[in-house]
Amino acid sequence: MKSKDTAISPTRKENYQDWYLEVIKAAGLAENSPTRGSMIIKPWGYSLWENIQSVLDGFFKETGHENAYFPLLIPLRFFQKEAEHVEGFAKECAVVTHHKLEMDDAGKLVPAGPLEELYIIRPTSETIIGDAFSRWVQSYRDLPLLINQWANVMRWEMRPRLFLRTAEFLWQEGHTVHSTSAEAVEETLQMLDIYEKFAKEYLAIPVIKGQKTPDEKFPGADTTYTIEGMMQDGKALQCGTSHFLGQNFAKASEIKFITEEGREEFAWTTSWGVSTRLIGGMIMTHSDDDGLVLPPRIAPVQVVILPMYKNQDDKPRVMEYAQALLQEINSTSYFGGKIRARIDTKEMKGGDKFWNNVKKGIPVRIEIGSREMDQNVLSVGRRDLPARDRLKISKEEFIAQLPQMLEDIHQSIYGKALANLELNTKVIDSFDSFVAYFKDSENSGFASCYGSIESVDQEELQKTLKDLKVSPRCIPLATIEDKGTCIFTGKANQPRIIYARSY
Amino acid sequence: MKSKDTAISPTRKENYQDWYLEVIKAAGLAENSPTRGSMIIKPWGYSLWENIQSVLDGFFKETGHENAYFPLLIPLRFFQKEAEHVEGFAKECAVVTHHKLEMDDAGKLVPAGPLEELYIIRPTSETIIGDAFSRWVQSYRDLPLLINQWANVMRWEMRPRLFLRTAEFLWQEGHTVHSTSAEAVEETLQMLDIYEKFAKEYLAIPVIKGQKTPDEKFPGADTTYTIEGMMQDGKALQCGTSHFLGQNFAKASEIKFITEEGREEFAWTTSWGVSTRLIGGMIMTHSDDDGLVLPPRIAPVQVVILPMYKNQDDKPRVMEYAQALLQEINSTSYFGGKIRARIDTKEMKGGDKFWNNVKKGIPVRIEIGSREMDQNVLSVGRRDLPARDRLKISKEEFIAQLPQMLEDIHQSIYGKALANLELNTKVIDSFDSFVAYFKDSENSGFASCYGSIESVDQEELQKTLKDLKVSPRCIPLATIEDKGTCIFTGKANQPRIIYARSY
Repeated sequence: MKSKDTAISPTRKENYQDWYLEVIKAAGLAENSPTRGSMIIKPWGYSLWENIQSVLDGFFKETGHENAYFPLLIPLRFFQKEAEHVEGFAKECAVVTHHKLEMDDAGKLVPAGPLEELYIIRPTSETIIGDAFSRWVQSYRDLPLLINQWANVMRWEMRPRLFLRTAEFLWQEGHTVHSTSAEAVEETLQMLDIYEKFAKEYLAIPVIKGQKTPDEKFPGADTTYTIEGMMQDGKALQCGTSHFLGQNFAKASEIKFITEEGREEFAWTTSWGVSTRLIGGMIMTHSDDDGLVLPPRIAPVQVVILPMYKNQDDKPRVMEYAQALLQEINSTSYFGGKIRARIDTKEMKGGDKFWNNVKKGIPVRIEIGSREMDQNVLSVGRRDLPARDRLKISKEEFIAQLPQMLEDIHQSIYGKALANLELNTKVIDSFDSFVAYFKDSENSGFASCYGSIESVDQEELQKTLKDLKVSPRCIPLATIEDKGTCIFTGKANQPRIIYARSY
Repeated sequence: MKSKDTAISPTRKENYQDWYLEVIKAAGLAENSPTRGSMIIKPWGYSLWENIQSVLDGFFKETGHENAYFPLLIPLRFFQKEAEHVEGFAKECAVVTHHKLEMDDAGKLVPAGPLEELYIIRPTSETIIGDAFSRWVQSYRDLPLLINQWANVMRWEMRPRLFLRTAEFLWQEGHTVHSTSAEAVEETLQMLDIYEKFAKEYLAIPVIKGQKTPDEKFPGADTTYTIEGMMQDGKALQCGTSHFLGQNFAKASEIKFITEEGREEFAWTTSWGVSTRLIGGMIMTHSDDDGLVLPPRIAPVQVVILPMYKNQDDKPRVMEYAQALLQEINSTSYFGGKIRARIDTKEMKGGDKFWNNVKKGIPVRIEIGSREMDQNVLSVGRRDLPARDRLKISKEEFIAQLPQMLEDIHQSIYGKALANLELNTKVIDSFDSFVAYFKDSENSGFASCYGSIESVDQEELQKTLKDLKVSPRCIPLATIEDKGTCIFTGKANQPRIIYARSY
């Protein structure tokens, strides 16, 4: 390992896509499964998801949401209720047609018990949850209804990619019902803010908050809001979406309520979700040619202690020291909790053990052996700095500085990602510059330009964009009032849109 | 409500099955869904599952297990690898045969994209996890491998019943790999002990730990261990199982390892699980004719404050008092954590609000209104005592006594359940007494008698048992060495078996 220059091969420059898969493999985050398009999330990857769940679940509950659980299988007739919705998902639905298996004459297992009513595995749950809500909501007193579900969903993907695009993925889907349009919009934007806060403050991913153009919105939504991150190769990743559904699903599912004045009205609904895709975004935002780099606030292990002993005689003394150090670290606080540390007790060569923990992305590594103990120093490595750089520091100083060190790592990787986003976002004012920008593959990033949002123009525009493999990512909320002449159609009074290649 | 004698109708005596469903409905725990056999777990029910997950997950992690996530869909060819396993689950498998939908000429959505490889929705995951394990395990150094998964599973049920038996249910499934048979057996029994501890100490359900008879074991297991609870109608509920799988699945999935001595051997595996069924068990063990009774240690809300004001002028004063009381309660500790309390702020009539909280099963209710405030007393109700009984107690005394009060409630409902189990377990020494015992429907409960465990005899025995609707529940571990003459076959040297009707 040490003979090579980097722990991961290929490097980002050599082949970004293969590098991504190698980072995942080397960290033991996930792997492909024999089920087409579905991944196995390994313990290290799943512990990241557990931390993501725990933080977001806290945010959801603080804002008054409750968790519930709805069926995995959606009757086909429900799915059919909202026309745009069907069109959006019909091409990627797994269909359940039988409820048992039988042996045929050749001794082969075959489906039996054909179902009278067919089911699809939920690609998202608006229709089945809407049906329940139509029973739960009767009066304005029942509103707002604020529900979240943690679940697996399935969208049959033709080109799956670990974490970013898998047939089955894990997510949360919020579904809320309100008595007014304004309140539903407020909820939609509140959840978008929560996603942005989570991306920035926990995953250290800077994101652009924006509104999807009409053709890119969720099938059945009035408005879709998104947070878009920029990966290290300049491509966009949609990290989370929040939908204002208007009365579309309320009408499809008959969610009505009696107002305070005694009128019967359709309710206003929202839905919003983030998924295991966030883990892919985190990997692509921070990792380097030595492997995974974990943001400290979400890292399952923030500090790892590597006992280095040359022989078994040394071991008890080193382990005893490591145990005492572990206790001290575990009783130190960072970002509202005790620091999560562990000792790597695996029996392997020192170098392998060292690189193993680099590749797992643990923010702070401490190597201790007889020499360090004799000198009362720790040899400390930070994952945001070159792996071979070690700081020699006394144990007392280290403990005192550790919370700030973790904070520095968070700020440093966030800062790097923000610089990447800012340096690779270009304001473009002409069609020719737009084409030139995206044709130069060295130059990949975000283009910010006035663009038409009319569907009819989009269709024309799609051809150009398709050739360039570029799509409109969002209308950033920060500049939503900034209007100008569309560089594609010449139409006046159009908003600034971020265009980019994307995952 | 108050005009009736009980809040739930029918009562347990009148119709136990309908009573059970009414308790669930009145507490807002769950409801049937339009998806055949699948339930919707409502927020109050789901919060119970969240607490169950949180405690068990802690126990699993303390004993060295890590969580991971495997595909929902299992390729048919995997499922086929273990013959007994297929036979056990083939009759209740949902089969996925297509991966998209199309409109037919009549404008009807129909399945399209037939799959070359068919999938079943996991009824349990031994086969797909076993395949992953065959790749993860190479050497004795990789062992033990201790994995758990929180997931939804599906077994097509012909007679679904909320929580107890639903087509889709939520559960955890532990899967472990070991280098020796002894270690795998030890793991199997360790997890059984954890289940027993959880049932007793958190759900307040006394259970009998035992071994399943050969014909009742998990399809593919060498030995299945179980914890069996007794519901209030004397029927048994299997609350959790832990399976020693021997080398059966290791052979089917080729899980092999190189021993320290360099030999290649098949590994030894276990699996163990509990599900949302535990919630059904908890309901049936403790609830009464006024509705749900929640064990304090698992209750999402342990104390509810009911502000009672006659008019809106009174409200601010009462609410302020309630808020202050809430803070005091929330900073008091019970069973290793802060007490979970909340104020019921719903605008409804006092009587309705009162009964609503009784039916939700909250262990301690506090009513406060102007009168109580003037006298500096609280009106306190315990869910394990008759709903109309209130204790008048000063606020200071209440706060001081609250932890003990919650503990008393736990002990009291556990004690009642234990008495039910002990009083309705009868040692039976002859075939005639056995038949008489189960024919007298007033007399339902557990029968403990020497029974043959030989499969061939079981088949004969099955006829008798089937007529009586009775099944062997387990060979209790506590008496496993106690052998005698089978009351059914006259065969000597057979163990004591618990027979009962069951859910």
